[in-house]
Amino acid sequence: MEQKDMVRLLERVAEGSVTPGDAARVLKVAPVTELGYASVDNQRGIRQGVSEVIYGEGKTAEQIIGICEAMIEAGQSRILITRLDEEKANAVDAALVPTLDYRAIARIGIVGTAPDPDGNGSVVVAAAGTSDLFVAEEAAITAEMLGNAVVRLYDVGVAGIHRLLSHAEEIADANVIVAVAGMEGALASVIGGMASCPVIAVPTSVGYGASFGGVAALLAMLNSCASGISVVNIDNGFGAGYQAHMINHVKARA
Amino acid sequence: MEQKDMVRLLERVAEGSVTPGDAARVLKVAPVTELGYASVDNQRGIRQGVSEVIYGEGKTAEQIIGICEAMIEAGQSRILITRLDEEKANAVDAALVPTLDYRAIARIGIVGTAPDPDGNGSVVVAAAGTSDLFVAEEAAITAEMLGNAVVRLYDVGVAGIHRLLSHAEEIADANVIVAVAGMEGALASVIGGMASCPVIAVPTSVGYGASFGGVAALLAMLNSCASGISVVNIDNGFGAGYQAHMINHVKARA
Amino acid sequence: MEQKDMVRLLERVAEGSVTPGDAARVLKVAPVTELGYASVDNQRGIRQGVSEVIYGEGKTAEQIIGICEAMIEAGQSRILITRLDEEKANAVDAALVPTLDYRAIARIGIVGTAPDPDGNGSVVVAAAGTSDLFVAEEAAITAEMLGNAVVRLYDVGVAGIHRLLSHAEEIADANVIVAVAGMEGALASVIGGMASCPVIAVPTSVGYGASFGGVAALLAMLNSCASGISVVNIDNGFGAGYQAHMINHVKARA
Amino acid sequence: MEQKDMVRLLERVAEGSVTPGDAARVLKVAPVTELGYASVDNQRGIRQGVSEVIYGEGKTAEQIIGICEAMIEAGQSRILITRLDEEKANAVDAALVPTLDYRAIARIGIVGTAPDPDGNGSVVVAAAGTSDLFVAEEAAITAEMLGNAVVRLYDVGVAGIHRLLSHAEEIADANVIVAVAGMEGALASVIGGMASCPVIAVPTSVGYGASFGGVAALLAMLNSCASGISVVNIDNGFGAGYQAHMINHVKARA
Amino acid sequence: MEQKDMVRLLERVAEGSVTPGDAARVLKVAPVTELGYASVDNQRGIRQGVSEVIYGEGKTAEQIIGICEAMIEAGQSRILITRLDEEKANAVDAALVPTLDYRAIARIGIVGTAPDPDGNGSVVVAAAGTSDLFVAEEAAITAEMLGNAVVRLYDVGVAGIHRLLSHAEEIADANVIVAVAGMEGALASVIGGMASCPVIAVPTSVGYGASFGGVAALLAMLNSCASGISVVNIDNGFGAGYQAHMINHVKARA
Amino acid sequence: MEQKDMVRLLERVAEGSVTPGDAARVLKVAPVTELGYASVDNQRGIRQGVSEVIYGEGKTAEQIIGICEAMIEAGQSRILITRLDEEKANAVDAALVPTLDYRAIARIGIVGTAPDPDGNGSVVVAAAGTSDLFVAEEAAITAEMLGNAVVRLYDVGVAGIHRLLSHAEEIADANVIVAVAGMEGALASVIGGMASCPVIAVPTSVGYGASFGGVAALLAMLNSCASGISVVNIDNGFGAGYQAHMINHVKARA
Amino acid sequence: MEQKDMVRLLERVAEGSVTPGDAARVLKVAPVTELGYASVDNQRGIRQGVSEVIYGEGKTAEQIIGICEAMIEAGQSRILITRLDEEKANAVDAALVPTLDYRAIARIGIVGTAPDPDGNGSVVVAAAGTSDLFVAEEAAITAEMLGNAVVRLYDVGVAGIHRLLSHAEEIADANVIVAVAGMEGALASVIGGMASCPVIAVPTSVGYGASFGGVAALLAMLNSCASGISVVNIDNGFGAGYQAHMINHVKARA
Amino acid sequence: MEQKDMVRLLERVAEGSVTPGDAARVLKVAPVTELGYASVDNQRGIRQGVSEVIYGEGKTAEQIIGICEAMIEAGQSRILITRLDEEKANAVDAALVPTLDYRAIARIGIVGTAPDPDGNGSVVVAAAGTSDLFVAEEAAITAEMLGNAVVRLYDVGVAGIHRLLSHAEEIADANVIVAVAGMEGALASVIGGMASCPVIAVPTSVGYGASFGGVAALLAMLNSCASGISVVNIDNGFGAGYQAHMINHVKARA
Repeated sequence: MEQKDMVRLLERVAEGSVTPGDAARVLKVAPVTELGYASVDNQRGIRQGVSEVIYGEGKTAEQIIGICEAMIEAGQSRILITRLDEEKANAVDAALVPTLDYRAIARIGIVGTAPDPDGNGSVVVAAAGTSDLFVAEEAAITAEMLGNAVVRLYDVGVAGIHRLLSHAEEIADANVIVAVAGMEGALASVIGGMASCPVIAVPTSVGYGASFGGVAALLAMLNSCASGISVVNIDNGFGAGYQAHMINHVKARA
Repeated sequence: MEQKDMVRLLERVAEGSVTPGDAARVLKVAPVTELGYASVDNQRGIRQGVSEVIYGEGKTAEQIIGICEAMIEAGQSRILITRLDEEKANAVDAALVPTLDYRAIARIGIVGTAPDPDGNGSVVVAAAGTSDLFVAEEAAITAEMLGNAVVRLYDVGVAGIHRLLSHAEEIADANVIVAVAGMEGALASVIGGMASCPVIAVPTSVGYGASFGGVAALLAMLNSCASGISVVNIDNGFGAGYQAHMINHVKARA
Repeated sequence: MEQKDMVRLLERVAEGSVTPGDAARVLKVAPVTELGYASVDNQRGIRQGVSEVIYGEGKTAEQIIGICEAMIEAGQSRILITRLDEEKANAVDAALVPTLDYRAIARIGIVGTAPDPDGNGSVVVAAAGTSDLFVAEEAAITAEMLGNAVVRLYDVGVAGIHRLLSHAEEIADANVIVAVAGMEGALASVIGGMASCPVIAVPTSVGYGASFGGVAALLAMLNSCASGISVVNIDNGFGAGYQAHMINHVKARA
Repeated sequence: MEQKDMVRLLERVAEGSVTPGDAARVLKVAPVTELGYASVDNQRGIRQGVSEVIYGEGKTAEQIIGICEAMIEAGQSRILITRLDEEKANAVDAALVPTLDYRAIARIGIVGTAPDPDGNGSVVVAAAGTSDLFVAEEAAITAEMLGNAVVRLYDVGVAGIHRLLSHAEEIADANVIVAVAGMEGALASVIGGMASCPVIAVPTSVGYGASFGGVAALLAMLNSCASGISVVNIDNGFGAGYQAHMINHVKARA
Repeated sequence: MEQKDMVRLLERVAEGSVTPGDAARVLKVAPVTELGYASVDNQRGIRQGVSEVIYGEGKTAEQIIGICEAMIEAGQSRILITRLDEEKANAVDAALVPTLDYRAIARIGIVGTAPDPDGNGSVVVAAAGTSDLFVAEEAAITAEMLGNAVVRLYDVGVAGIHRLLSHAEEIADANVIVAVAGMEGALASVIGGMASCPVIAVPTSVGYGASFGGVAALLAMLNSCASGISVVNIDNGFGAGYQAHMINHVKARA
Repeated sequence: MEQKDMVRLLERVAEGSVTPGDAARVLKVAPVTELGYASVDNQRGIRQGVSEVIYGEGKTAEQIIGICEAMIEAGQSRILITRLDEEKANAVDAALVPTLDYRAIARIGIVGTAPDPDGNGSVVVAAAGTSDLFVAEEAAITAEMLGNAVVRLYDVGVAGIHRLLSHAEEIADANVIVAVAGMEGALASVIGGMASCPVIAVPTSVGYGASFGGVAALLAMLNSCASGISVVNIDNGFGAGYQAHMINHVKARA
Repeated sequence: MEQKDMVRLLERVAEGSVTPGDAARVLKVAPVTELGYASVDNQRGIRQGVSEVIYGEGKTAEQIIGICEAMIEAGQSRILITRLDEEKANAVDAALVPTLDYRAIARIGIVGTAPDPDGNGSVVVAAAGTSDLFVAEEAAITAEMLGNAVVRLYDVGVAGIHRLLSHAEEIADANVIVAVAGMEGALASVIGGMASCPVIAVPTSVGYGASFGGVAALLAMLNSCASGISVVNIDNGFGAGYQAHMINHVKARA
Repeated sequence: MEQKDMVRLLERVAEGSVTPGDAARVLKVAPVTELGYASVDNQRGIRQGVSEVIYGEGKTAEQIIGICEAMIEAGQSRILITRLDEEKANAVDAALVPTLDYRAIARIGIVGTAPDPDGNGSVVVAAAGTSDLFVAEEAAITAEMLGNAVVRLYDVGVAGIHRLLSHAEEIADANVIVAVAGMEGALASVIGGMASCPVIAVPTSVGYGASFGGVAALLAMLNSCASGISVVNIDNGFGAGYQAHMINHVKARA
């Protein structure tokens, strides 16, 4: 452990954002657990404020179990596994000591429970259509697991603009909004024009033909005529939920 | 002149959509004027209801003048030249006997004047931003020159949705709407959700970076979640105005 | 229900396009049925003239059944479900009280029967090849279910131009034409040059190699040298049939 | 002016984020100034917290001057004009009463001066290479003009990773980071891995060949393996600076 | 000179396709003239039946002059320079002893004159529109210079199918057809369906927006539903004329 | 049957390219058999010299059987079915009276036998690698079934240039060459530089990663620096074999 | 066997890079074994220093077995089969006399054993994430089988830059580095900036959405701002391992 | 200066690859000169063996002069400026004390002279056509300036394969080959099949139409069927020359 990290750790203890117990454990734990196929970073929570999350796609159930065990060993009590299909989820659940809470729509596995929300305000997750929920839920659950109060606005696509306008209140009150849409992705622009907080747009792969697996929505969102919108990868609900968390936890002026 | 066309010509005379004078002239005029570089179709107005329009791009001023002269020779009193730059417009104006009325924003040259509107109702041309006017005006002028009453709604992009909502009346009253937008092209979807008439979406090349010269708007419009929208080529204001005219002149049930 | 919509409703009653019974039912029904995964818009028929259609792809059979039940509850007697695969169709049929009429080629499920045609004239649906029928039928059935007389011209691709020319009569008589083609999509241009009514071009994903799943046909149709053509998304037979319906029902001049 | 907006306006007066004078002026000013080619939104600052910004590209100098005059007329004392080339800037400067401060690298024209920073913390703008400065400066100046303290880290591309590592302190202290890079755009990922605050990545069009005008950097940034990164359009320094401002002004927990 | 080439040379003398004089000259000339910036192949006419052609683009006038002089030196009396702009043409004309015949539309410079046609039959060059002539003429002149009788059919685009049908005779009589078209490129398919000889399709860069510089026409031609069509690069009139020549000179059965 | 076609038919009888028996049968057969899902063109052999070929992909076994029966009914004794998978081939074989000869590698079904070669010379089919044989065989069998002598040169990719050079004799003697290659598609250019006859290049979908399903080979072939090469769609062995047949049967000078 | 090759063979014997035994065997073996579907090059090891490697994809187990037998027959004792799936591997193992050593992650089958390393130094293979190992192992095993000492650095992606920095020593000591990464592919640039030896970058298809199957990583690597990096095809671990071998065996100055 | 770098510096002094004078100067010079717009890395030569090279594109003449002056100040006597247009070159030449040697074809400016070649062997730079020389020369001059003996093989494109085969000797003797080609880029594959050393392929933007500014050549090279080829960005002669240098200077086995 480098000097600088240790200083930061102790500063966080001083600030109260890391408990003395956590700090103590860090000082005793190896910074990285080497599994051969993966280097588990045991101090990421210290360095970046959020512990490592497991991206389940492209990993075998065995590898996921191994990484979970290393994390639990290193004292991490809350684990998020994204892009986890049902079959692997069952295998992981069977192998681990703690129960795995599996959210099928979002394809997320959870060890532990969500913390109490401690962000600056609320995170709104808005989704254009029923088919976009798998991404919207990934964003919403991620934000909840990181300590945010989430307001869900679903099936509010712009083809029936009145559905969106009827939620003007929630949009105006949000601290950060995640706008999830496939097809032409216009939801982000309309919300961007209504909101006075940052909007994170998530294009989804919902659509066919010239939607090109989400590219149409991605391009629309990147070219939004509304200001204050930024974009994450197609179907990247996790990334949007994660950044929404960061924005909702931005340090307040002293 | 084929038998079938002549029958149709006479039927149109009978219907009143072609005057006897026009019919007489057709019977005396060669069906095609061969200019070497172009075959001018002198009976298109008879066959398809609209005389030939000159697409100015990629033609020299000399070629455009030659085609205009052949049309005038064949009795066509109203000529539309699209994608005509100012320099060529001046050359054409100088060479032709009738005056050329040049509309700089739309890059259109006109011989003759617009007819009285005789369509079923109004054509609304809506444009998202100031930079989209060169396309919107091409659509509007084309529709006017073909005999349509045009209502212009400009600078009504979705980033300030209230601007569009304040025109709900005109949108509800339209017979056909041309929705012109660059960047993310969301205007078409929102109008499509508000209107109960056909919407022709025109993507424009306005934008930069990942707009790819209008591709982002094109894809958005093709993937619109609203029903009743069809799309023309990027910047093709003429095509949209032309089809709006056709829709606005659809034969009514007897 | 907003004032403006109510006025429009009553105007429609006055015009005869909405029956007093329908109007009465609307005044008693909640404008939206919230199902959690979907907001069913019960007044779309009033506002836009056509009731909500269910896009079956990406929805579970359970969700589709739920939406159908909400619609039936709200008094809608005719339901169209597009992109419905056979397995889901069977599940929906088993669950609903009314029979589901399943059209396998078009992948459409229908509750209720088609109304008598009441459009201005006929809708021609032309398809280039045998493999394009799944899209052409989606367009044709959609138009029929919305109240249009449909003329089908199938296997009329341009590689044997005489096949198309032999249908010149139907093309000349149409009020609107839907041109369906994959591969190089040239059908739209040739029909566009023959017709004097609007043409809606539908590219299909039929082809291989450099057809890129319908992109070659899409681009060809967007770049058509014929005037009066607009384009919908690849394989979007529904959208074309829907817009053809709108064009065929454009309000006639008083 | 709608009731709801007026309430919000008065709330903002109560909060102190709008002065009574500004509120008074709003109550006397027309909500929109219609210029024909543009609808100037005079209440955007009230509704969304930031007054309208003029996007100079695709507008003539005359149009820009007209919009500025309408804004000044409506009481806006600070105006930002982006994508303004030098020639137009000179014309605008000559025509307006207040002086136009033109920042050549960023192609930004400014009326008025930057406010005192009032954000939650600092905005770091990091740029990979000398050629990326035109975008980085657009972001930095935008953020400054909206009331943020900006720290610039320039020429810190990853090919010499030590240059970036030597700024670990500024990165750790930032409230939000704008990472600007062309070519392979790797800067965003490396910063994303070092930072514990949100990172807004801006791909630039710097590069040649297979950079495809910034697409390579855009794709890299969208696919970043680091969490907490979102992306704006190629060369969209303004959008990044604007969103950084929003993030830096997120409402803190009471 | 390798043994095998010499045998082939003498066989060609025996067949009569190479004159004894040409053969004699070959035996005395160096097979390659090395100019540093280019290796001029003096025996290509012997080996492949057609002497080297100079591709003018990307070469300076000086380089072109040098290559011409080497060819003349080596006894070549007929030289074709393609993609030659007017300025370079003037410089080449001034520098060479023989006159350069410059065809401006086709951007071709010619030394010497076209030989008498000696192919199996006629080469038809058909072009869709006036703007496609620069490519069509490149094909036609190339074929003429290589010894083919060329029939030109210009402005026969499919949007007015009757124009093409009126040339059914020339199409049926052709030995090989070059079909030149931009925009949607449908001309090739329609001709392919009418002809019983090979068709070489040439997409042109004529068009705008989603024509992507000729890509739309290229894809359409590659996906033609007509059999017997092959395609060359966008705007490659030379390649089409060259291959048409080869096809028109295919060895007849003994 | 139109007058013109009948004249051509009788001319062909006079020339000997159609037998009196075939002509007689044509005069008795309906020109088109309408099957609802397909219009079988019974006079294509008369008009274009080659009878209709069935493209099996996207057709059901039932449809293929129906078309075969219509063809046999109309007197066609030799039928080619391309892109026919094994399962459908078995169904077709079971249903038809004549035996279906199924060539698994080429996925071709054949009714009848190949005619004696009657072309001007030989067709060479060259393939770069073992994996390209499915396309090469489609081309070779097509050419054989249309009456051509075919020489196969397989596994002659340019990475071992000596393999290709050792076949210089066959290449020099060919009347037309079909060059089949995936990956980087360089085979066409090298053969193009060696041959003095037309070369038809067929890109294949063989490859991975940045081969993009054959696009890399397609682009390489379209951009070949060798003259006299034209290209067909990716994996289109049939089209190449068909055009090779046409070239090999070009009418010789009298 | 050509004279020139024999001279080179004997020179290699003289140099010691080919043993007299190998040379003797070559002089007795046919240079190519023709299998119909493949031409096995028995002298490639002599000509290019590495014997033929079998690319397993797109070949049947039977074809692979046939090629192996021909190689063994021709005296090759070490065989590498890449892109070999498990099922085919079992079939090959069952059919061949020598045992097939199958490496599942890398999908490589091996006959014989790796030689002792004889390169100039070490080959480092670095991989960004766990999911990239299938490519990294293909590179590593290829290099080992060709006679190189390989150092593996796995899970060293740039999102946690400290993981990579902790291996600065191995990077500085390498003779050549293979950098394997999917997603945004930034690993190559960072290593390129740290290393003073050539870096071969291998983009992988790991990722989703806008990674487009590895295109994002490919473009990033091609546009790297670090010097000394070159790139191979997506997932082409074999190609990278092969070239690393060549670089590690470059002839040293005498 | 970090400890580790200093150790490496002294090791290099010990090895003889850095002179004691250079080492002494380094110890006195600041590691980075901060110019505001650029951070000049004064120890890159120590760390990576090659001093910083200036990429001229996107930098003003003033910036280039400033960086040169900082380098000269820091003791660097040999400077390479790539992508330098003639106008800037003149400005730089006028401003600097040492003369700038400008190579127009390669667009390279040089301060100082090339060192004596000290690589392991020769670098061959092969170019397909005359138009590719601007890239080939960039590679060749870069390699020469870094201390390599370069053999140029120009105008050896594969369309005349004999031109390339006549240089088999130089290819066989090379230590590393740079293969430069536009259009279809086949040169790299053919050379790759002939050579037994690493080949670095450089696609050029030479071509038109479907060459897409070098993409066709780039894809061809990435998909080469020859082993041992890697690729750099389109037109990146510098990168290829740089890596060729690295390969030619790989440490020999002790």
